[in-house]
Amino acid sequence: MAVYTEIDDEELAGFVAQYDIGTATGLKGIAEGVENTNYLLQTDRGSYILTIYEKRVDPDDLPFFLGLLDHLSNKGVPCPPTIHGRDGKALRHVAGKPAAVQTFLRGIWPKRPQAAHCGEVGAALARMHLAGLDYPASRPNDLSVDGWAELVAATAVRADEVAKGLAGEIATEYEYLSANWPRDLPTGVIHADLFPDNVFFMGDKLTGLIDFYFACTDALAYDLAICLNAWCFERGGEFNITKARRLISAYREVREVSAAELAALPLLARGSALRFLLTRLYDWLNQVDGAMVKPKDPMEYRQKLRFHQRIEGPGAYGLD
Amino acid sequence: MAVYTEIDDEELAGFVAQYDIGTATGLKGIAEGVENTNYLLQTDRGSYILTIYEKRVDPDDLPFFLGLLDHLSNKGVPCPPTIHGRDGKALRHVAGKPAAVQTFLRGIWPKRPQAAHCGEVGAALARMHLAGLDYPASRPNDLSVDGWAELVAATAVRADEVAKGLAGEIATEYEYLSANWPRDLPTGVIHADLFPDNVFFMGDKLTGLIDFYFACTDALAYDLAICLNAWCFERGGEFNITKARRLISAYREVREVSAAELAALPLLARGSALRFLLTRLYDWLNQVDGAMVKPKDPMEYRQKLRFHQRIEGPGAYGLD
Repeated sequence: MAVYTEIDDEELAGFVAQYDIGTATGLKGIAEGVENTNYLLQTDRGSYILTIYEKRVDPDDLPFFLGLLDHLSNKGVPCPPTIHGRDGKALRHVAGKPAAVQTFLRGIWPKRPQAAHCGEVGAALARMHLAGLDYPASRPNDLSVDGWAELVAATAVRADEVAKGLAGEIATEYEYLSANWPRDLPTGVIHADLFPDNVFFMGDKLTGLIDFYFACTDALAYDLAICLNAWCFERGGEFNITKARRLISAYREVREVSAAELAALPLLARGSALRFLLTRLYDWLNQVDGAMVKPKDPMEYRQKLRFHQRIEGPGAYGLD
Repeated sequence: MAVYTEIDDEELAGFVAQYDIGTATGLKGIAEGVENTNYLLQTDRGSYILTIYEKRVDPDDLPFFLGLLDHLSNKGVPCPPTIHGRDGKALRHVAGKPAAVQTFLRGIWPKRPQAAHCGEVGAALARMHLAGLDYPASRPNDLSVDGWAELVAATAVRADEVAKGLAGEIATEYEYLSANWPRDLPTGVIHADLFPDNVFFMGDKLTGLIDFYFACTDALAYDLAICLNAWCFERGGEFNITKARRLISAYREVREVSAAELAALPLLARGSALRFLLTRLYDWLNQVDGAMVKPKDPMEYRQKLRFHQRIEGPGAYGLD
């Protein structure tokens, strides 16, 4: 939610001239996106998103992300294709940092997602999974079991500052998940961060998926579990089984989900809840003075974790 | 540099329907503008700025500001006209707060203003002053001598935390300015905050003036003095006489400046420097924990104040 990097006038003109997109007529920093600096770049030809990659993105991963956007959008997945420069390259530099330009997608992210939105997301997620199956590159998921171990260690001493008993609860859960984490589910490219603010709609119709900067190669059903957590709980913390049913059934109409994947869903949802609990807890405990981003509440994900721990099986998600 | 107010989906649709501007196709929070929440609102008809007025703007002042934009843009001043609703009203409400929609102006604010930009600003400022002469409403300048007195009192105890001797320096300057402040210069509507980030350009050509939320009725030459401070110093703090000459001479080509106004310029520039020194100092000393705005350095304006204190007369600004 901030502009970390400003672009001087002459540098902007020189940067835009590397593309065949016309002349800049507007540049506004966008107050969304925690990881990178995003500008809405307007030219006499159209609207674009100019992203400057800040230190939380590994530059070595950028070819994977940008190539993925091209691959998926070529296959009809509604994600923003990257604009390539006159020399054919999509990954460029501005203000001394890696940068890329993407087509602007119309639509607005839903502040209060409804069941219809969840259905659209389920279907789009499945289409993205199918389209990504033949993407030639791969990238390990830094925020799976091994990554959790590092975050468990980094937060253990101070976790109880946030809530009494939290460190113990996290350690026990981590131990259980690492011992039981499924290793043989179908894998492919997953988005890994498909929260409502990364999905655009016009009314009830999905128009775009954005922010693929956590995308990686992992169990496809894990992506569905992330969406269960991101889309199917109410603001008060209650699980909405109608939304879950719409999400999962719409997904299954596009991609066949195996019995093993369905059986693993509660465990995957626990893993997803632990992942966001850990990263939010870490950010909460390591707030930077003067940072322009408000950390998100880690406790929201402890509540979600406990929900998935308590259920009997995937039937609790409305599956038949 | 923040979005303070989010708008729910249904509320947005209902709000946009109050105007004849089509259907919303995009809404992005803009990371600029310290005082209010600004969204770039896109519809199937065009681009607009949706401003939600936060607590630092007095709602009673909004008719003055919005009427002024209409008045000035009707007279050809390049500022964004307000969009009126189907019922004719420009000032509306969204998310429980006052809000207005303005036409989007093309152009980009200059990160490193050149002398040519200063000339354009001088001419546009003068045109704005002439166009505002018959604006029927008036609004006192809260941040003139009386307002400074309050800020001097509010910062006196802690000013020396920022720089040793600062409280005394401010008190002496305030005493001098309040005893000598000119009361008989030509007045009219002034912008009062025409910094580079409030002026758009396409290349060297000025395309727009924005952010009139400090506009008030005061000495016209005081606005010129504010621009001297905002546009004619280099990043290292050096005064650039070439830029000042361009600014003032372009202004004088459009509006005749009296001998009294010219003679008063150094004093007005000291007053302007004290005004921004005081407001920045106040914000610096009263930083809100978790605020998403970085306070600006007050010391920049102490340096500018000292420059204007030292000069012999208005000739130092390149006047002939």
